[in-house]
Amino acid sequence: MKKTRVLIAGFGNVGRGVLAAIGNNPDMELAGIISRSPERVAREVSGVPILKYDDVAGFLGLLADVAILCGGSKDDLPKQGPWMAQYMNTVDSFDNHSRVPEYFHAMDEAASKGSHVSIISTGWDPGIFSLERTLGGAFLPGSRAYGFYGLGPKGGLSMGHSDALRTIPGVVDARQFTHAVPEALERVRRGENPSFQPGDMHTRECFVVVEPGADKAKIEATIKAMPGYFAPYKTVVNFISQEELNEKYKGFPHDGAVAAAGTTGKGNPARIEYRCVWGSNPEATGNVLVAHARAAARLFAEGRRGAFTILDIPPAYFSIYDREELLAHWI
Amino acid sequence: MKKTRVLIAGFGNVGRGVLAAIGNNPDMELAGIISRSPERVAREVSGVPILKYDDVAGFLGLLADVAILCGGSKDDLPKQGPWMAQYMNTVDSFDNHSRVPEYFHAMDEAASKGSHVSIISTGWDPGIFSLERTLGGAFLPGSRAYGFYGLGPKGGLSMGHSDALRTIPGVVDARQFTHAVPEALERVRRGENPSFQPGDMHTRECFVVVEPGADKAKIEATIKAMPGYFAPYKTVVNFISQEELNEKYKGFPHDGAVAAAGTTGKGNPARIEYRCVWGSNPEATGNVLVAHARAAARLFAEGRRGAFTILDIPPAYFSIYDREELLAHWI
Repeated sequence: MKKTRVLIAGFGNVGRGVLAAIGNNPDMELAGIISRSPERVAREVSGVPILKYDDVAGFLGLLADVAILCGGSKDDLPKQGPWMAQYMNTVDSFDNHSRVPEYFHAMDEAASKGSHVSIISTGWDPGIFSLERTLGGAFLPGSRAYGFYGLGPKGGLSMGHSDALRTIPGVVDARQFTHAVPEALERVRRGENPSFQPGDMHTRECFVVVEPGADKAKIEATIKAMPGYFAPYKTVVNFISQEELNEKYKGFPHDGAVAAAGTTGKGNPARIEYRCVWGSNPEATGNVLVAHARAAARLFAEGRRGAFTILDIPPAYFSIYDREELLAHWI
Repeated sequence: MKKTRVLIAGFGNVGRGVLAAIGNNPDMELAGIISRSPERVAREVSGVPILKYDDVAGFLGLLADVAILCGGSKDDLPKQGPWMAQYMNTVDSFDNHSRVPEYFHAMDEAASKGSHVSIISTGWDPGIFSLERTLGGAFLPGSRAYGFYGLGPKGGLSMGHSDALRTIPGVVDARQFTHAVPEALERVRRGENPSFQPGDMHTRECFVVVEPGADKAKIEATIKAMPGYFAPYKTVVNFISQEELNEKYKGFPHDGAVAAAGTTGKGNPARIEYRCVWGSNPEATGNVLVAHARAAARLFAEGRRGAFTILDIPPAYFSIYDREELLAHWI
């Protein structure tokens, strides 16, 4: 089996999740890691090249088949994505929903110009949940499909929103738990197809560690005003110590559901619900990203170029199995 | 909007479900119905041509863009599928899992020779559940994905198995309810990834109306020995009157789940579950088939030819929405 050589670009939680996922996929191989802090990465990973971004630009396409971009969506990916797409195939989890069209077109232009494949905005949401929403809408016409996060009592830890909190001056560390609004989910299950504002479906709970002497009132106001991330939601900000954060809010648990309900024919009820429950969101995201690296390599091999989302990819391309195996055992 | 003209081939329960679904999709248009009994169909449907198979062979490609084949998998589709694929694009719900590879290759040959697109084996299972199994396997490597039917107390009515019962000499009418084995589903949810035989996951309950004087023992033995359909399962056969069947077991309720569970990284639990609950299985199947007719027309328009399964189709092709709408509101 010719292995797909994967470069990890950015080695935070998602990068670690991708590293773990590569080890679970026998057709995948770690080719190297690119980081702003190669010394830090070298303390965790050995046996592969660990490089800085600027060192390797001209050689990226030689180093690996696909780069999985694990930077943040707010500051990293808008620049790093199009830059990397010049040099090689990429997969990323750009998760700022309101800016997806703009990011898609920037990546499509860069990847087309560089003659590469770039799969954008994949992982859980956007990603699998985007797929399940779209299928729900297609298979239950007239219904709408809704994504809910954090159905359990603890809620789900959002990495994108936690990253966004950490970009605020004065914030040392932070974690954001998303909670589904139970009444909203019940309305969807009953087939009401309500017109929600984002803030009707979820609330956001932030646990924030700040620098000594930081202006907490200003930080709280900055958080609550962040467009896209927090402004539309009922947001609770809790300032706590690093110790309390580490102890009570550790790990990356996550759960969610995509739900769609409506009727068929003359009023027969119809409901679809897709659920996932994760002990570790970044490891699960890593699994999804690695499956997309497999798809990117296949799209590239068949001559496709430009940007893609999960909606543009034949699902068989995510599977390690070939057509005959899928026909015999998975259909 | 240029509408996709759909021909319904075979007008039983699924054909009626497709008819209802076409009415709910503004980009779809009924072009006609082909039936062995056009007189019977004409009592239900007016305003479109209702034709016999032999009448129309040469004209099929003119009549419509896509035919949705609604015949049974046991006797109808193995002949009807390749015959139709010579003349036009087709979508079908061939559901005899063990014969899918053979049917795929027959359809691929016929559709390629006729220069058409044939999407096979879609609906719920095979179909969406095939997709969800494959995604579960791809995104949770090392885990296995399992399809369960009939999680509710009444079980789920299987149309394919009911059709199979009705082919047995002496059987006047019949309905088959599938029941999930609860302990099997719990084992999957716990991440055990057990090696099930089909009979470990489901039991089959048959309600059968026979001709006066029929040999019930022989019919029961025939049912229990049917390869693929009943032989591998614990099967209960109940002989009842037509009145009791009509009264107690009417309608086409259906529910099920695809479940996959395993671990990520160093033992973090991970679980995916896809559920659907239908008041009417054939209407839900009709919705899925019509979405695939949309995909077939798009594949054909871009020059693709031959046989496809749901695993070969970019999910965006099922949606009525265009790329910009999907990027803006569904990713």
